[in-house]
Amino acid sequence: MSSILKQRVRYAPYLNKLRTAEQCIELFKHGQYLGWSGFTGVGAPKAIPTALADHVEKNNLQGKLAFNLFVGASAGPEESRWASNDMLLRRSPHQVGKPIAQSINDGRVEFFDKHLSMFPQDLTYGYYTRDKPDNDNLDFTIIEATAITEDGSIVPGPAVGASPEMLAVSDKIIIEVNTKTPSFEGIHDIDLPVNPPFRQPYPHLTSDYRVGRTAIPVDPSKVVAIIETHANDIVPPNAPSDEGSKQIAAHLLEFFEHEVKLGRIPENLHPLQSGIGNIANAVVEGLAQSQFKNLTVWTEVLQDSFLDFFESGSLDYATATSIRLTNEGFEKFYQNWDAYSKKLCLRAQSTSNSPEIIRRLGVISMNTPVEVDMYAHANSTNVMGSRMLNGLGGSADFLRNAKLSIMHTPSARPSKTDPTGVSCIVPMAPHIDQTEHDLDIVVTEQGLADLRGLSPKERAREIINKTAHPDYRDQLQDYLDRAIFHGTKYKTLHEPHILKDAFKMHTNFQENGTMKLQSWDQKF
Amino acid sequence: MSSILKQRVRYAPYLNKLRTAEQCIELFKHGQYLGWSGFTGVGAPKAIPTALADHVEKNNLQGKLAFNLFVGASAGPEESRWASNDMLLRRSPHQVGKPIAQSINDGRVEFFDKHLSMFPQDLTYGYYTRDKPDNDNLDFTIIEATAITEDGSIVPGPAVGASPEMLAVSDKIIIEVNTKTPSFEGIHDIDLPVNPPFRQPYPHLTSDYRVGRTAIPVDPSKVVAIIETHANDIVPPNAPSDEGSKQIAAHLLEFFEHEVKLGRIPENLHPLQSGIGNIANAVVEGLAQSQFKNLTVWTEVLQDSFLDFFESGSLDYATATSIRLTNEGFEKFYQNWDAYSKKLCLRAQSTSNSPEIIRRLGVISMNTPVEVDMYAHANSTNVMGSRMLNGLGGSADFLRNAKLSIMHTPSARPSKTDPTGVSCIVPMAPHIDQTEHDLDIVVTEQGLADLRGLSPKERAREIINKTAHPDYRDQLQDYLDRAIFHGTKYKTLHEPHILKDAFKMHTNFQENGTMKLQSWDQKF
Repeated sequence: MSSILKQRVRYAPYLNKLRTAEQCIELFKHGQYLGWSGFTGVGAPKAIPTALADHVEKNNLQGKLAFNLFVGASAGPEESRWASNDMLLRRSPHQVGKPIAQSINDGRVEFFDKHLSMFPQDLTYGYYTRDKPDNDNLDFTIIEATAITEDGSIVPGPAVGASPEMLAVSDKIIIEVNTKTPSFEGIHDIDLPVNPPFRQPYPHLTSDYRVGRTAIPVDPSKVVAIIETHANDIVPPNAPSDEGSKQIAAHLLEFFEHEVKLGRIPENLHPLQSGIGNIANAVVEGLAQSQFKNLTVWTEVLQDSFLDFFESGSLDYATATSIRLTNEGFEKFYQNWDAYSKKLCLRAQSTSNSPEIIRRLGVISMNTPVEVDMYAHANSTNVMGSRMLNGLGGSADFLRNAKLSIMHTPSARPSKTDPTGVSCIVPMAPHIDQTEHDLDIVVTEQGLADLRGLSPKERAREIINKTAHPDYRDQLQDYLDRAIFHGTKYKTLHEPHILKDAFKMHTNFQENGTMKLQSWDQKF
Repeated sequence: MSSILKQRVRYAPYLNKLRTAEQCIELFKHGQYLGWSGFTGVGAPKAIPTALADHVEKNNLQGKLAFNLFVGASAGPEESRWASNDMLLRRSPHQVGKPIAQSINDGRVEFFDKHLSMFPQDLTYGYYTRDKPDNDNLDFTIIEATAITEDGSIVPGPAVGASPEMLAVSDKIIIEVNTKTPSFEGIHDIDLPVNPPFRQPYPHLTSDYRVGRTAIPVDPSKVVAIIETHANDIVPPNAPSDEGSKQIAAHLLEFFEHEVKLGRIPENLHPLQSGIGNIANAVVEGLAQSQFKNLTVWTEVLQDSFLDFFESGSLDYATATSIRLTNEGFEKFYQNWDAYSKKLCLRAQSTSNSPEIIRRLGVISMNTPVEVDMYAHANSTNVMGSRMLNGLGGSADFLRNAKLSIMHTPSARPSKTDPTGVSCIVPMAPHIDQTEHDLDIVVTEQGLADLRGLSPKERAREIINKTAHPDYRDQLQDYLDRAIFHGTKYKTLHEPHILKDAFKMHTNFQENGTMKLQSWDQKF
């Protein structure tokens, strides 16, 4: 037992349960329901998942030792290994990594995505374990901790996610105490909502509000093992902002300035939510360099760009459910711990993504879709309507409830054969996660479409003119004109569509590798 | 001035502003932005809209004296008359009546529907009036009152709706005091949410919680006229429950019993939300006759069936934003005022439809869609993807946030030529208002599909087997099989679709009057 472990685990009885990951393998049976800590690839357990994957590989148990796995959002590379080894029967509510996406799209894993605010709640309602024969608890939750308090409560690492709810509804708990990273004690704020009919209001009035609980309480008798681990989270380098994403950021900053000038938002804006990816990074960089001051962030995940945002002096406070940094980012973070831990806190995803709080704070929400259609429905998940990328995440928690709901996307993306073979503005999205009733603003490098208060046809004109790639503008306008002609005939002019043509751009992409049509009369 | 008017208007300065509706006509100019009180066809102003319609008809001003009109949801028959006379330029967020739906689908009115919880809030943000040249206030709000308090506050009638927010952002106010109906004083509970960044939590912990304000405060200097009116609201008779809707109710009651038995909901259920229509009525009748006791209702609109529900003794408390009764219903209501006014309250729609409160209370939400697809996306608004029925209403406020999100629908509806020409279960909904992430239960007269925790393909099997009409079961299963075959080839098995076939049932209906296909290979 390392001295650092003794120091971190301040509840002595757990130290008697110290095991190696290998010693725990026998606890796991095919078909069990497991919860893992973790969110956006950080803070997930590492030793047990690795030991189990080793065990499966060594004994050729692929498909024979497989589990129903729940993680707040995505776990680390270990879930990819589980997917490659057919160790997943069912997975929810989010995932990242080629092997796991492949196993879902190959039909080997039953996956469902769910609003990240709702997932932990529905788990505690027993909705996801209702087919379990014995009881509707999870069999195990495996959670990464960076410290254990005197009463056995768990101090997580860089992610809180759904851990509080999972621990509450698990029969047994295994704690992986990570002694490689510093303790994160003091940075978390753990709210424990009670289920209806006894639920109380969230008291949060500002981004920096804290309920004051810094560790997750557990029933110590459920803890069957603790394991010492030494592995870092491995986060791939951030996508750098490119010319297009900088143009998007510039359009957004101009829009914010306009809204402030008209008095529709305060000078320090409202708490910001920003997704993952190069556009999100460009927007954060743009805000850091702008004249906006005293900004706050209420979001789901913080990335490296937020550290620069803090350093710019413009950001007063940021809160999320996970802090997903590269190795360099984490180093910087640890070195300036005292400063960051006063300006930052990590909450449960049921809190970070709470519709109640998002709407109350008037959050400005910015996310990247797969595509947006001309009437302002957005596809966040399923390419060509069917192929799962990562899952819904918290996009709809934020976009439904934000004061300003913004989708930012390149106007087009390359296909294998055409540098602009995929238009991100389409006549009809073949999968809809955000409805026309949820989006205020669509912005591409071409420009910004302000959709507030517009009828569907007005939205279509605004989206086509302001945001579509020039390669597609005429084609989209042509569809709209034809749909209006058709709708004039059939008296269906509210949101005119020609159903047999609505997906022709997608079908052409599937058959010919580009969304550029010969003509709308083309047959498939 | 009638003695009853003097009695009702307890703020004397208003009585000096007593006018006839005709005397107000000159205040109205083409292009103005107007708010009306009213919700689901009750509590809307009557005299001014009628006088203006008379004026337009008499002077052939059709299309020349037209307005941007906002009402909490649908107004009364007056909005139909306005639509017939081309007196509407723009309308939001909901409407009912053939003439207004026609004007939207003919392309004569710019209509947009919006979540009813969000509409009043976005109005106060100035989102819907941002094109106004002078300021972003409404020009006029015309509100029906049943009394005026000593400080000039307005006591509405049977609907609160968006009136509090409209009055707050109107330059001028006209009050129609309805002296035909009894005063509704004491039945309202008016919450006045403050906008971000100063918004506070809603304090509501139970359906019967009251903040205690029984009238809507206004700035008396904005009131330019009061008018005495004597007209009843005219509500068409309720759709009676038929055999199919009774079967749906029976499936639901059985499901509730099952959930109570497993401890997932309490014995008195959770607060219920129920929509409008014959299925909703059958469900309420079923609950009234069931063994469930001490029930509560947190909904948007109360109909006649709720009076019987109260009389059954099973319903302890009900709250909504409007009480939409037939003449007989209102008579009964007035006669038992003392009893009902203790068991019932009417709130602003921003409160009745608040995601914060709906989620906190764990509401059980039940609504009727146009159609549901096999992966559990629902169309609530646009027939064949384009033709507007009534608007989104509060369906998504409730279905997104409820603890149990239920869609009930007949499995099939008649077309002109085929008694089951329209399947309400389709491969892909051509308009999506509720996503696959929002629905827990789909129920038809055929049976109940429990979708909680299921992957898309599992959902499809459950929906087809349990809820589809026998005339369509094989056809839908055939689509699913083909989509799975297709998805196996292209590795798109998460939510398998064949985009060029996905709307063939709809296209066949448009061209041949039935959704029954010759074959999935049929070309259009």
